[in-house]
Amino acid sequence: MKFIDGGVGAPQGFTVSGVYAGIKKNPSKKDCALIVSDRDATAAGMFTRNLLKSPPVVWNQALCRAGSARAVFINSGVANAATGPAGHEDVRTTADYVAGKIGADPSGICLCSTGVIGVRLPMDKIRAGIDACHAALSENGSGDAATAIMTTDKVAKAKAVEVTIDGKPVRIGAIAKGAGMISPNMATMICLLTTDAGVTSNVLQDALRSCVDLSFNRIGIDNDMSTSDTVLLLANGASGVDLDANHAGWSAFYDALLGICQEMAAWLVKDGEGVTKFVTIAVDGTANDEDARTVARAIGNSMLCKTAFFGEDPNWGRFACAAGYAGVDFDPANLDIALDGVTICAGGLAADYREEDAAAVMKQPEFRIGVSVGGGPGHAEFWTSDLSHDYVSINADYRS
Amino acid sequence: MKFIDGGVGAPQGFTVSGVYAGIKKNPSKKDCALIVSDRDATAAGMFTRNLLKSPPVVWNQALCRAGSARAVFINSGVANAATGPAGHEDVRTTADYVAGKIGADPSGICLCSTGVIGVRLPMDKIRAGIDACHAALSENGSGDAATAIMTTDKVAKAKAVEVTIDGKPVRIGAIAKGAGMISPNMATMICLLTTDAGVTSNVLQDALRSCVDLSFNRIGIDNDMSTSDTVLLLANGASGVDLDANHAGWSAFYDALLGICQEMAAWLVKDGEGVTKFVTIAVDGTANDEDARTVARAIGNSMLCKTAFFGEDPNWGRFACAAGYAGVDFDPANLDIALDGVTICAGGLAADYREEDAAAVMKQPEFRIGVSVGGGPGHAEFWTSDLSHDYVSINADYRS
Repeated sequence: MKFIDGGVGAPQGFTVSGVYAGIKKNPSKKDCALIVSDRDATAAGMFTRNLLKSPPVVWNQALCRAGSARAVFINSGVANAATGPAGHEDVRTTADYVAGKIGADPSGICLCSTGVIGVRLPMDKIRAGIDACHAALSENGSGDAATAIMTTDKVAKAKAVEVTIDGKPVRIGAIAKGAGMISPNMATMICLLTTDAGVTSNVLQDALRSCVDLSFNRIGIDNDMSTSDTVLLLANGASGVDLDANHAGWSAFYDALLGICQEMAAWLVKDGEGVTKFVTIAVDGTANDEDARTVARAIGNSMLCKTAFFGEDPNWGRFACAAGYAGVDFDPANLDIALDGVTICAGGLAADYREEDAAAVMKQPEFRIGVSVGGGPGHAEFWTSDLSHDYVSINADYRS
Repeated sequence: MKFIDGGVGAPQGFTVSGVYAGIKKNPSKKDCALIVSDRDATAAGMFTRNLLKSPPVVWNQALCRAGSARAVFINSGVANAATGPAGHEDVRTTADYVAGKIGADPSGICLCSTGVIGVRLPMDKIRAGIDACHAALSENGSGDAATAIMTTDKVAKAKAVEVTIDGKPVRIGAIAKGAGMISPNMATMICLLTTDAGVTSNVLQDALRSCVDLSFNRIGIDNDMSTSDTVLLLANGASGVDLDANHAGWSAFYDALLGICQEMAAWLVKDGEGVTKFVTIAVDGTANDEDARTVARAIGNSMLCKTAFFGEDPNWGRFACAAGYAGVDFDPANLDIALDGVTICAGGLAADYREEDAAAVMKQPEFRIGVSVGGGPGHAEFWTSDLSHDYVSINADYRS
């Protein structure tokens, strides 16, 4: 597996674009993106579990159950969430319009919207955006598309990987935005993936679910789950390589998919609102992986732990305390905590360490907190950020 | 029920004191407090559910199961948490020393410690503090005691209530510290309650559990549950009024206990770290009260909702979104949200309201967010704060 330039336009048979259509106030920003496959693609998706699913999420869920897609249209600026029957009608209208442009069936058009909740899509601008996106489609448009889906993101996120299967190059491309958060009013993390491998619907969905569990489902900026969180994967088979789970090349493909999902997920955390630290919480010794994930998440989501990360304070009492209220049973006398290589808590008590060694670890932009709670086989990692003044500033500002 | 001056020293038969014994670095602060009943009192307690219970918490739990106490000794500066067998030994030594001073059995001495986790009690200073506290005991010492248990609290919190039962005055007094948080290294919220009513152990414990559920268990500053959270209630019968749940005066006593618990709980939120807003989240229409509490807690603990409170931003999409991921099933089409009297979301959609009216509500230091999710009988309130720059500053500072 090697990372290569290009995002969703890197796999064969996909063209991409991103334009400004007047949905965002600032004309220097783009706000509409389009990804088109030149042939029918298998579609898989993972979505928010929030009760308040936005109309585009509901639409994409039905589409992924049917399993086939030709294109993805995304707008930023307005989330089309909490918009009721009118929001669902706007989704149908948008799908019809994209389908007409590219000569496809509306049932194969994926749709994502990110931005203010509770406001209807400006349909005239959406149509103009689709027109302009369609005219701008190219294999090199991933950067524009990655820019067009940004809300409070600081950098556009596009990346691709390539593996060789049956002697042929197989590529997976991605663009993503918005780190596990609902920003001021902007709802959503979105990751769009394309591949020129040919994979059947159920196999693709299973692979995506597994990879999302090991990437996007193990990151946190704040604890908020948006109404629009979406990961979509389109596989169009243009590489000429058809895969299933019994194929000799399957593990190479799966590893590449997992690799790019983890790369994009970590990138979302690093580019999260006000983030200055990227912290890996690695928990082991629980009865099972699920328990390990619960403990890791409790530490990674604790406001007191996150402010300690920001303050570069090796305050192991807070980490131990969060582990203790996670809801997973363990014997505190078995609790060990290490910052990179520095053990700061052993057997539930302060370890024999030099404060400056522990502090030096936390001064780094990235570090690892290893937590062991016993002898069980469970293990999990969680990637999180600090909680900084900038997070409060960004999210306390009035919607603007 | 009327609120009166005085704290835990207000009920008959109790004396109180607070002194500086050198545990905290700053000699202008007090750090040891003692509350003594002149006769055996019934004891009830509610404690943290954190797996990592501090040795004093474990000690108090056993004491409350036995049900009888004569005194409470509290130190601030060191939490005696995550201190292992040595910490339990220090608890026994402290109880012995207090018991010797006041001529009681060590099994009747409640102990609380709040401060840095993972550090042993400085026993010489503890003994000196007990000596000085014992010498200073008086009916008027509640203010000193309330000051001595403070960590990052800005104001000392002492209050009492009086009701008349069988023609006699019955009083309940309280001191408390530390708002639902673990501050930089200071763990713990503590509330100590005294009453001169006579109440048997089981009845007292049931009443305290019920009142804590409706007060301290419905507040949040951050989401962190400390290793030391403690509410203790000593009832010594010195008023000459003996009560049980069948007594005609029981409801007056219960209402007074609930009243002072709610008063102290709200005070903890208002004096929480960096708090500028006191927000009541009132949820109804769920299937039961527990579901309502879950929804209220999700909104009240959301970092995005709390930064919106700080920013005075009536961003109902965030409130709706947090309700949607709480894990309680409801139909989003039934979701109504009001800020005091201003309905901002009706039937899951933006209501017809003036932005300036909603913003005006949030500019107040205290306001109420009413959330209705259907026609069920469930109802709950949760009291929370905003998330401010000062919270980050206080908690990012290095332990000092």
